[in-house]
Amino acid sequence: MKTGLTFDTVALDDAQSALVIIDQTKLPNEEVILHLKTQQEIHEAIYLLKVRGAPAIGVAAAYGVYLAAKEIRTDDYETFALEFAKAAAYLNSARPTAVNLSWALRRMEKIVKESRGLSVPEIKEKLRAEAVEIQEEDIRICRSIGEYGLSLVKPHDGLLTHCNAGQLATSRYGTATAPMYLGHERGYDFHVYADETRPLLQGARLTAYELEKAGIDVTLICDNMASTVMKQGKIQAVFVGCDRVAMNGDAANKIGTSGVAILAKHYGIPFYVCAPSSTIDEKLTNGAQIPIEERNGEEISTMWYKQKMTADGVKTFNPAFDVTDHDLITAIITENGIARAPYTESLPKMLEGTQGH
Amino acid sequence: MKTGLTFDTVALDDAQSALVIIDQTKLPNEEVILHLKTQQEIHEAIYLLKVRGAPAIGVAAAYGVYLAAKEIRTDDYETFALEFAKAAAYLNSARPTAVNLSWALRRMEKIVKESRGLSVPEIKEKLRAEAVEIQEEDIRICRSIGEYGLSLVKPHDGLLTHCNAGQLATSRYGTATAPMYLGHERGYDFHVYADETRPLLQGARLTAYELEKAGIDVTLICDNMASTVMKQGKIQAVFVGCDRVAMNGDAANKIGTSGVAILAKHYGIPFYVCAPSSTIDEKLTNGAQIPIEERNGEEISTMWYKQKMTADGVKTFNPAFDVTDHDLITAIITENGIARAPYTESLPKMLEGTQGH
Repeated sequence: MKTGLTFDTVALDDAQSALVIIDQTKLPNEEVILHLKTQQEIHEAIYLLKVRGAPAIGVAAAYGVYLAAKEIRTDDYETFALEFAKAAAYLNSARPTAVNLSWALRRMEKIVKESRGLSVPEIKEKLRAEAVEIQEEDIRICRSIGEYGLSLVKPHDGLLTHCNAGQLATSRYGTATAPMYLGHERGYDFHVYADETRPLLQGARLTAYELEKAGIDVTLICDNMASTVMKQGKIQAVFVGCDRVAMNGDAANKIGTSGVAILAKHYGIPFYVCAPSSTIDEKLTNGAQIPIEERNGEEISTMWYKQKMTADGVKTFNPAFDVTDHDLITAIITENGIARAPYTESLPKMLEGTQGH
Repeated sequence: MKTGLTFDTVALDDAQSALVIIDQTKLPNEEVILHLKTQQEIHEAIYLLKVRGAPAIGVAAAYGVYLAAKEIRTDDYETFALEFAKAAAYLNSARPTAVNLSWALRRMEKIVKESRGLSVPEIKEKLRAEAVEIQEEDIRICRSIGEYGLSLVKPHDGLLTHCNAGQLATSRYGTATAPMYLGHERGYDFHVYADETRPLLQGARLTAYELEKAGIDVTLICDNMASTVMKQGKIQAVFVGCDRVAMNGDAANKIGTSGVAILAKHYGIPFYVCAPSSTIDEKLTNGAQIPIEERNGEEISTMWYKQKMTADGVKTFNPAFDVTDHDLITAIITENGIARAPYTESLPKMLEGTQGH
């Protein structure tokens, strides 16, 4: 029986001197494990998407800044704190818009601020513990989302997912994939369909790869085939991840997610958004307030193909995300429970950590 | 001002000794005009999709078998008819499932059968005239679909199309693109969005190419971005072609079409199927009776990328077409008028050639 990835998405090595990641830009054709020791190497790995996925980036940043702290040669608190702040700012610049990156680094900086009076070695040890806790929290959150998600499906169900909200985007389990992994451990025998997810093909390159590695029955389809597999009765539930959720339940996720939600509603298939409570944004009343990044059109016209696939002069439009309206979402699954409409009432409970079903 | 393609999709050369096509497998990066003289060359061009699109294949086959007839060196009717039948059978084997291929060849064979008693040179001249008539009919049909389609939209509208039901699939105008070309001639200033249409990218390679050549404002998107452009209010109507229509209005077309129809219905956008009456199949009561070709999964996992984009062992599902349910279709536009629900009543009138609006 297949047992999944033989490596962690993000880890500290045994000597606690290097950040160990798998180079996701090389997947699925090569499994290249990188041992990153310098701040430059870690910065580049985040910038070039060698490690990606909001939770995984957060963990990488926490370990990365711990490794930087370890190298600071001083016994003076002020000097240590200044050097630490510089290292954190440098890592934070790798992907300025990634919420989890700055969130994890702020947590680490808080440790330093709260540790005035301790010796530098003691502070370094507290930083190591905090980075480990950030990773263990991520694992607990994903596992909890998985348990709640699993309660919504049956053995032998067909499940559809879009993009990669998988193990490769987190420390373990993933979010949208967590019910699949937990169900697989318990013999649920799911049949998973993975949208390839143009233009960057995270579904083809990452989701199909990691599920196959785990021995889960996975079938890759083009995005435009989702309607057909749903119509053929192959899909009993859709699970997707998300980048940000507004307080009315509107959820931003990889481009194409809203289309999948509309298809699911048309065919009467439940559509579940898997969202760590950290993605619920109290400041947003609805999804229209979520800014949508527009990326380079060459991702559509040229990138993977090595040659241009469209004539010169043809314009492209390449939004990286879209917003799925709350009325298309059957439930939002968090580590604190399952939120259902009206989300204006259920989501605040998720933030409070109240259990909800 | 741009004036469109500088070549015909299919033509006979001036000396009437060669079939002239543009090699569609080389588009959009190279515009290679082929002069095909031998039956082997013409067979290969159809087999390898150098010429594609049901109407264009029909015209190519008609001219191709005429060129074969020209080369038959005999004055004896029986000998001529036998050689002609062999040539037609050979061309017909190029793409056994292409309806227009066998339809056009049957029309040409009927000329031979009806011409017993005429001299061989007279028969050859009748064959040439029939091939020209098949092409001119195609042009009239597309133009008529264009006029009916144009009556359904307004200047400055945003139009979405999927796959290539364009000039490159017909002799001129295309079917789904016919309203765009006619409107462009009349200053309608449309904004067209073209789905790239995975896995074979006909939208990126062909539709965006030919519309841009004609000076029509065209923007290429990935299939999974259609929901976003619709939500943003950029689309006022969807026009698609079709391969076969059942008598209840269910329409088979390139994979992904049904998904676009569901999105259009969700956003309240009219969804029009452009269908020459030859695609309406009196033998089919509903779309479930339309067989759907499943193609090689390497079209998804490898083909354009030159390298595998998914791990070994990952299964693929690659249906080439899907069926759009009649209740998702606002109207079916034929050369004989515009059919609306109930299609069981309106489609028979289209077959009779009765005008309908």
